[in-house]
Amino acid sequence: MEAIPSASYSSTLRVEFPHRAGALGQVLITIGEAGGLVGAVDIVRVGEEMSIRDITVNARDSEHAQSIVRAVEKLPEVRVVNVSDRTFLMHLGGKIEVRSKMQIRTRDDLSMAYTPGVARVCRAIHEDPERAFNLTIKRNTVAVVSDGTAVLGLGDIGPRAAMPVMEGKAMLFKEFANVDAFPICLDTKDPDEIVETVKRLAPGFGGINLEDISAPRCFEIEDRLKRELDIPVFHDDQHGTAVVVLAALINALKITGKRMEEVRAVFSGVGAAGVACAKILMAAGVKNIVGCDSRGIVHPERDGLDTSKGWFAGHTNPEGLEGTLTDAVKGADLFVGLSVPNVLTVDHLKTMSEKPIIFAMANPDPEIRPELAYEHAGIVATGRSDYPNQINNVLCFPGIFRGALDIRAREITEEMKLAAANAIAGVIPEDAVAPDYIIPSVFDERVAPAVAEAVAEAGKEDGAARRIQEQAETDFQSMAY
Amino acid sequence: MEAIPSASYSSTLRVEFPHRAGALGQVLITIGEAGGLVGAVDIVRVGEEMSIRDITVNARDSEHAQSIVRAVEKLPEVRVVNVSDRTFLMHLGGKIEVRSKMQIRTRDDLSMAYTPGVARVCRAIHEDPERAFNLTIKRNTVAVVSDGTAVLGLGDIGPRAAMPVMEGKAMLFKEFANVDAFPICLDTKDPDEIVETVKRLAPGFGGINLEDISAPRCFEIEDRLKRELDIPVFHDDQHGTAVVVLAALINALKITGKRMEEVRAVFSGVGAAGVACAKILMAAGVKNIVGCDSRGIVHPERDGLDTSKGWFAGHTNPEGLEGTLTDAVKGADLFVGLSVPNVLTVDHLKTMSEKPIIFAMANPDPEIRPELAYEHAGIVATGRSDYPNQINNVLCFPGIFRGALDIRAREITEEMKLAAANAIAGVIPEDAVAPDYIIPSVFDERVAPAVAEAVAEAGKEDGAARRIQEQAETDFQSMAY
Repeated sequence: MEAIPSASYSSTLRVEFPHRAGALGQVLITIGEAGGLVGAVDIVRVGEEMSIRDITVNARDSEHAQSIVRAVEKLPEVRVVNVSDRTFLMHLGGKIEVRSKMQIRTRDDLSMAYTPGVARVCRAIHEDPERAFNLTIKRNTVAVVSDGTAVLGLGDIGPRAAMPVMEGKAMLFKEFANVDAFPICLDTKDPDEIVETVKRLAPGFGGINLEDISAPRCFEIEDRLKRELDIPVFHDDQHGTAVVVLAALINALKITGKRMEEVRAVFSGVGAAGVACAKILMAAGVKNIVGCDSRGIVHPERDGLDTSKGWFAGHTNPEGLEGTLTDAVKGADLFVGLSVPNVLTVDHLKTMSEKPIIFAMANPDPEIRPELAYEHAGIVATGRSDYPNQINNVLCFPGIFRGALDIRAREITEEMKLAAANAIAGVIPEDAVAPDYIIPSVFDERVAPAVAEAVAEAGKEDGAARRIQEQAETDFQSMAY
Repeated sequence: MEAIPSASYSSTLRVEFPHRAGALGQVLITIGEAGGLVGAVDIVRVGEEMSIRDITVNARDSEHAQSIVRAVEKLPEVRVVNVSDRTFLMHLGGKIEVRSKMQIRTRDDLSMAYTPGVARVCRAIHEDPERAFNLTIKRNTVAVVSDGTAVLGLGDIGPRAAMPVMEGKAMLFKEFANVDAFPICLDTKDPDEIVETVKRLAPGFGGINLEDISAPRCFEIEDRLKRELDIPVFHDDQHGTAVVVLAALINALKITGKRMEEVRAVFSGVGAAGVACAKILMAAGVKNIVGCDSRGIVHPERDGLDTSKGWFAGHTNPEGLEGTLTDAVKGADLFVGLSVPNVLTVDHLKTMSEKPIIFAMANPDPEIRPELAYEHAGIVATGRSDYPNQINNVLCFPGIFRGALDIRAREITEEMKLAAANAIAGVIPEDAVAPDYIIPSVFDERVAPAVAEAVAEAGKEDGAARRIQEQAETDFQSMAY
């Protein structure tokens, strides 16, 4: 499967060439012949003999971008002055900043925002620490915490190299749900140390988003932090994915007409995200899940089961199947792929139930190429933006924390996650749900507010909320005097 | 000394009264008679019979504000509908926010700022971790770290209650020097745990500003972090104060004509800030310092000396004085007060050298009332904004971190602190230095850039800088391809 040129491999070539008719065209043709997709073409300078232009080109990958530059350089009378990588440009100096909400221009401003006036605010919180939710950034702020051990598909690249992802996450929190999120990348991989550290830095935060922490450490870290902190702790790689998978399944079943209880699901990939997806599907009613890894079906008699496989062995596979993925998919209604490219074949599809539902989420190359799957599958979803039905955590985490912060939640409960999945699914009107439209776009502005509202309601019902009633913003007045 | 009504005790009274001539005047007169200072008067609603106005009133303290409200309530036909405290209003929901530097509006934006494009940026940093300074917020971001044990004059009020101060500090960092600072308030008081925690969260930061950590823990914590981290660590309560005190002294000596080496200095207050001030004065040339606490002069034979008093005993008092503050100040040129109100008397001043320099920085009430000191002292400075010569850390910390970040400093050295003090002093032209103008205003926009430049230069000279030459912003280009 050849990748499509994309903005993530986008360069701006500054090119000098003779100022005469056809010269720019020749450059653009050369880029096109090299497979580059031309975007903006800006004038830098037009001289009597030579012109300089900035040409933005999308390539398939880094090597392809280089080959495009080489092709342009070979043109007679053409000189590539400079090549800048737009993705790197965007990251220069980081992608987020910390801003004051108000200006400090006068002594009066200073004496209220800082000393001496701030002392009264400190005292008010000291008298009642819950006031921190009213009088500090705790009300709206989430720590995005990673140890850099499982960053994207890159693995254990360390805390410094993980920062661009965590900054990106913070951007998305703000853009999609007006949550203030700050990246904290930890220079330790020890679960005890991570738990200790997060607990110690928690006072200023209203929630903890764990991110890109490798299994099985992520289970223990999340479990302990959930128990020991009084603010929501949410490992997005697990639960964000699970919520969006359930949302996709809810709408997919509207098309196939099956009930959750009737679905037979096969998982390829039984790591941390697999466990979370299986748990939420079971909470939503799915009874029959079979998990597979590279060695085949997970069952209790297999040796060498780690934490997540152990969970699958103990909680799924009600018929006690053994064998390979090929055995598992026979007659299945749903394939959930969180594994590696191309493990699912067209022959597999032919043995599944009629028009099965395929969620092939390996990134960037799915468990089966959608083009191959369409003929036999009823519905296909992937993790990619260039096919319909993108299963993307961005649909979940901004809204789920927005809702949790709005009710000053102590935790994010199972009910809140189910509510989030239903809200994502519900954004698409019943009559608009279609095989190529079971999941809203990540840019659908209805998603985050719908998720936030549903999550807040669920949290109020199940006791996670500190704040049930809408309180007037003026409840600080009684503190003051 | 009766306090002056100030914005830090400012309320907005929503008052309803008859809509007829003289009624508003009667309310304002009543507020004035109660000692309140009226600011803005806004119309909320004017009806046929009754009007409602918002009247902003500065008071001396909380009790005074309440007494003003009671006085207004006693007026016939007048009703106080609502009282809101402007300082608390300003703190609602916290004072800072995290913002994206660019918008994410399209799939192309998303694919460059986040997945999949961000993976290339992560890989580039993984290959060379120093690139984090170019490609993440590390370049411009400082953690403001406190454990809440010595917050303002409030003492050990805990991490949640310390947040408003640390948020205020973050605001000042941004407003005065465009540094992105984020507050981290720690739920531990154990020095080992604080050191561990700060080391673990350091990868995303370009500097650590320690704040409001009580002595003697602050010494050990700062020393260890300085040794063990490769980014600047700066305990502002100590060194920020010291830098500004030295700046004030530099200009004061321009008036008195004495050289640093000739100055005989007496300290009242020999805690953490006292040690830092004494150290920087000695680094600047002062040879004769005598420290006093409530038991009198600190000397090596005294028992029960803690860390900071031990330091004073070992490094100051070259003449081996014993006795009380009264003995110490005889013939002294400089009084440095970092202690408690009203320990310095007019009689003390009479025994000092002619026209001594008095830095009375106890807050809010200085070691001697400036009004009393002026007759005998040559120069008086305090920590207060309502007298000339305010010694305020805001003059130091934004610029010092700006300079350190600009050169990607590994540490803030003694030379960099001295450079900062000289830069602050140098903002006032030689011919403008006067007894009531030895320190620039905190709102003097020349200060932070002057400090930053001087600090950066000093850091380049003494080896603290990672970055000596101005590098083109485009040195990322070589990474990309």
